[in-house]
Amino acid sequence: MLIAWVMQSSPFVARAACLLAALLLPTAAVADALVDNVNGIALDQDGKVVRFTGLLISPEGKVVKLLAENDKRPAKLDWRSDQHGKVLLPGFIDAHGHVMELGFRALELDLSGTKTLDEAKTAIAAYATANPERKWIVGGGWNQEVWGLGRFPTAADLDAVVGDRPVWLARADGHASWGNSAALKAAGVTAKSVSPAGGRIEKSGAEPSGVFVDAAQALVEKVVPQPLPKERDYAFQKAQEILLGYGITATADMGSSLDDWLAYRRAGDAGALRVRIMSYAFGVDTAVRVGGTGPTPWLYADKLRMGGVKLYADGALGSRGAWLKKPYRDAPGQSGAGFMSDDVIRNLMSRAALDHFQVAVHAIGDRANAEVLDAIDDMVGTYKGDRRWRIEHAQIVDPADLPRFGKNGIIASMQPTHQTSDRTMAEARLGPDRLAGAYAWASMLKNGATLAFGSDYPVEKPDPFAGWAAAFTRQGADGEPYGGWRPEERVSREQAWWAFTGAAAYAGFAEEKFGRLGVGQRADFVIVDRDPLLASPSDLRATKVEQTWVGGEKVWVRK
Amino acid sequence: MLIAWVMQSSPFVARAACLLAALLLPTAAVADALVDNVNGIALDQDGKVVRFTGLLISPEGKVVKLLAENDKRPAKLDWRSDQHGKVLLPGFIDAHGHVMELGFRALELDLSGTKTLDEAKTAIAAYATANPERKWIVGGGWNQEVWGLGRFPTAADLDAVVGDRPVWLARADGHASWGNSAALKAAGVTAKSVSPAGGRIEKSGAEPSGVFVDAAQALVEKVVPQPLPKERDYAFQKAQEILLGYGITATADMGSSLDDWLAYRRAGDAGALRVRIMSYAFGVDTAVRVGGTGPTPWLYADKLRMGGVKLYADGALGSRGAWLKKPYRDAPGQSGAGFMSDDVIRNLMSRAALDHFQVAVHAIGDRANAEVLDAIDDMVGTYKGDRRWRIEHAQIVDPADLPRFGKNGIIASMQPTHQTSDRTMAEARLGPDRLAGAYAWASMLKNGATLAFGSDYPVEKPDPFAGWAAAFTRQGADGEPYGGWRPEERVSREQAWWAFTGAAAYAGFAEEKFGRLGVGQRADFVIVDRDPLLASPSDLRATKVEQTWVGGEKVWVRK
Repeated sequence: MLIAWVMQSSPFVARAACLLAALLLPTAAVADALVDNVNGIALDQDGKVVRFTGLLISPEGKVVKLLAENDKRPAKLDWRSDQHGKVLLPGFIDAHGHVMELGFRALELDLSGTKTLDEAKTAIAAYATANPERKWIVGGGWNQEVWGLGRFPTAADLDAVVGDRPVWLARADGHASWGNSAALKAAGVTAKSVSPAGGRIEKSGAEPSGVFVDAAQALVEKVVPQPLPKERDYAFQKAQEILLGYGITATADMGSSLDDWLAYRRAGDAGALRVRIMSYAFGVDTAVRVGGTGPTPWLYADKLRMGGVKLYADGALGSRGAWLKKPYRDAPGQSGAGFMSDDVIRNLMSRAALDHFQVAVHAIGDRANAEVLDAIDDMVGTYKGDRRWRIEHAQIVDPADLPRFGKNGIIASMQPTHQTSDRTMAEARLGPDRLAGAYAWASMLKNGATLAFGSDYPVEKPDPFAGWAAAFTRQGADGEPYGGWRPEERVSREQAWWAFTGAAAYAGFAEEKFGRLGVGQRADFVIVDRDPLLASPSDLRATKVEQTWVGGEKVWVRK
Repeated sequence: MLIAWVMQSSPFVARAACLLAALLLPTAAVADALVDNVNGIALDQDGKVVRFTGLLISPEGKVVKLLAENDKRPAKLDWRSDQHGKVLLPGFIDAHGHVMELGFRALELDLSGTKTLDEAKTAIAAYATANPERKWIVGGGWNQEVWGLGRFPTAADLDAVVGDRPVWLARADGHASWGNSAALKAAGVTAKSVSPAGGRIEKSGAEPSGVFVDAAQALVEKVVPQPLPKERDYAFQKAQEILLGYGITATADMGSSLDDWLAYRRAGDAGALRVRIMSYAFGVDTAVRVGGTGPTPWLYADKLRMGGVKLYADGALGSRGAWLKKPYRDAPGQSGAGFMSDDVIRNLMSRAALDHFQVAVHAIGDRANAEVLDAIDDMVGTYKGDRRWRIEHAQIVDPADLPRFGKNGIIASMQPTHQTSDRTMAEARLGPDRLAGAYAWASMLKNGATLAFGSDYPVEKPDPFAGWAAAFTRQGADGEPYGGWRPEERVSREQAWWAFTGAAAYAGFAEEKFGRLGVGQRADFVIVDRDPLLASPSDLRATKVEQTWVGGEKVWVRK
């Protein structure tokens, strides 16, 4: 208005106004940009659905305004993108993933599609033949449950296919790995080797059988050749490509190593950071080496921050590493085990919290969840303020412990597709009587916890539409079981959406930066081929992302 | 001009021009700033002295123009600083220093001022008493040559002062360290310990005497508690404060560890990077972990870049670790030793050059210099283009090898104050006949090498005025020796100045960024209390830096 007035005055005043306007400008560009003619759908802070037809974006890539049909469009625009009525949604946020593992999984031998051990053997043999220059065959994605094998695979199974060099393959959940005899030999693992604390060498009689659970994986991993930095860069670009293709514009990286972090910085420095990364360091030492006395600032226009620390209270259910209050139903002598003593986990949580790093603790079994809840209870008196303690997975919780999630501002960071993938296995591990607090999303909300959703990619695909559909149906892609598994723990379609957007941002202290297309937030959004609020569950799962935009820039287009 | 014309036209056109002007602006601020009323002195690209009275600075902190007395000052300025006729010089650049060591040296026990072993013992005892909470007494700066001790100090010397906890003290040149018995015990060093390749455990009979040379230092260092990241941050801030106080606005950091680099990034992220750092990684692995496939970009508005790799061909003269063609005159059985075999050094140089990292190799002795010159000869056929191979120190060179520095674009990165500090020691080590190619600055220029100067701080003080005065006098602060030591190797006052500014920038691939107050370069300059071109050598040494400016911002003021 000032400028309009001045323009009718003298050249001198006009010039002064010109200078004034320039001084007020945040960047070189002067006008906003408009993504127009959209069927825009978002949730506001109260979880209410907002519809709009235009999205006005500042030169910095922030949301200026959501425009309704009748709102006047600015005459002067830096650029305008006409979407011809397509559906526009806020970018999705995965509250729990493993960025570099996603990229490496895509570049290495991938067994996640195999339905039987024989299929896997065929794939391994083919990969070995196709990659004669690789000194180790490395990969992952296997799952003996999917194969219906009724046992872990063995080194002998692998030796039958590759004998000339080591093979080392991670289980789909990353909590176990499978090696051939050459790998065991390279690592010096023999019948005399002892399982380390927090891990288990699977045995066949006295001999190691070839599978290493949780901390025991390190016995072999220490001799596996580490990827070069340029391979990390390539894997990271691959991971970003995959995430953007699923409409993920921001993600928590749950356990960034120092080398992962250096790869993210290289991408940031080169202007090649396309997905926003909320990094949780793999352990306190890495967090402190990177952040010094606390979280890093938001870097690269809110594209990267190391804000917290990932810790592990136990392992996973599939490999019976999850720590249970009572023994596994299908392995009566075993209850899993805590990764750390009470003292150690409190000590690590304290060390992180002291420097204001956010603490995210992996807890799958009911015993592990109870222990972490106890530890948080012990922490809150000392570490006050807005801490957002996170429990990752919170899969099997004693119903008696569920209300405790509502205390202390705890964030339950859960993965809907784990429920649909794991339900048969979970029933085998625990029996039906101990599943009342399993994957208990609705109970979490009812108890006042913040529910943030993710996929735990690459364990599951980072597909938010699969997670979203699972969350309000408790059914798999096959529609099973009819009526949903323990359907009382469904959440509403809008609650699930929020858990994949605004709440996932909140879980990473990012709600002021992105997550819901609020005014002033980064303009992160996707153009998709259908309205997710009107689609049937199976239609929702079939949603295709056509464009992905981060910070007002189109960073991915379906080809 | 366009704008001036438009201002006489219609409001509509004026508005368009306003938008246009805004689009052309690099940042929010619209006007340049002026440092005025200075006695400005700089060197142009041809080494010619340029005098000016005003420095016009863009909103980005770059040089717009050097203004002469009669040049009209712009009417519109963002700000103006009147320097009341004070002398303004380009900021100095130290082509070879150790940033974090400078900071730690300032925070730890500093023996660099001690003139005798007894003085050192008194200082050590006082420090131990004043710091009862420190589990180790760590520090450095001692020099048995300065003490006139005629031998290395011993563990027993230290035990007499501190027996209750380990003491570990680096020699001034960093090429040897001295421990007490508690330190040797903590490290498990006994009479049975063997000197590692590239290092030497000093012995007293069969027993380790307490001093460890070069690679042998690692035997004890591995048990010395490492500083915490927050201590690194503090040391870095201290180092910057010291450097700025000497008028150093940019420096090469010769051997950045990964943790050093992470500290620099923390400072950059926090906006606390005040000195420009040209980082050379400590070894290829660190360079590759940080840079991936090559040097990092210039970061934080040209304040930080990892552009190269520091390698070591040998040790130092004081500790007889320098690798000589013939035995030491004062230790007939010893010739020092190469740190690496021919194959290994070529392999490392190749690995660095393959990814376009600049290669900087420490070479002190004539044998080491010859070996590195050979290696560079072998490299240039494969690694073409603008490589700027650096030899750090190039202290003792066989006169027959001097002309070889002119080939292959080699940069001789030398330290004038080493010459004045070392001359007596060098004469003892080598005898007068073997010093014809020692500290041969003028010969380097004559042979067509690029001569870049630094101080090797904290080995010497990072005082460029001391280095400058030494460079054209070959005399110490005491004026000795009369007429200068081997005065044929003096360089001119202007040549020395250039080696501490423009050539030091060139040596770090930074000549487009800073170094000579050229138009478009970063406005890095100092305000000092005298004209260095008119001052006597002793007056030049007494120069006081009053203000230090980096990127057009006043970042240090004498209190």
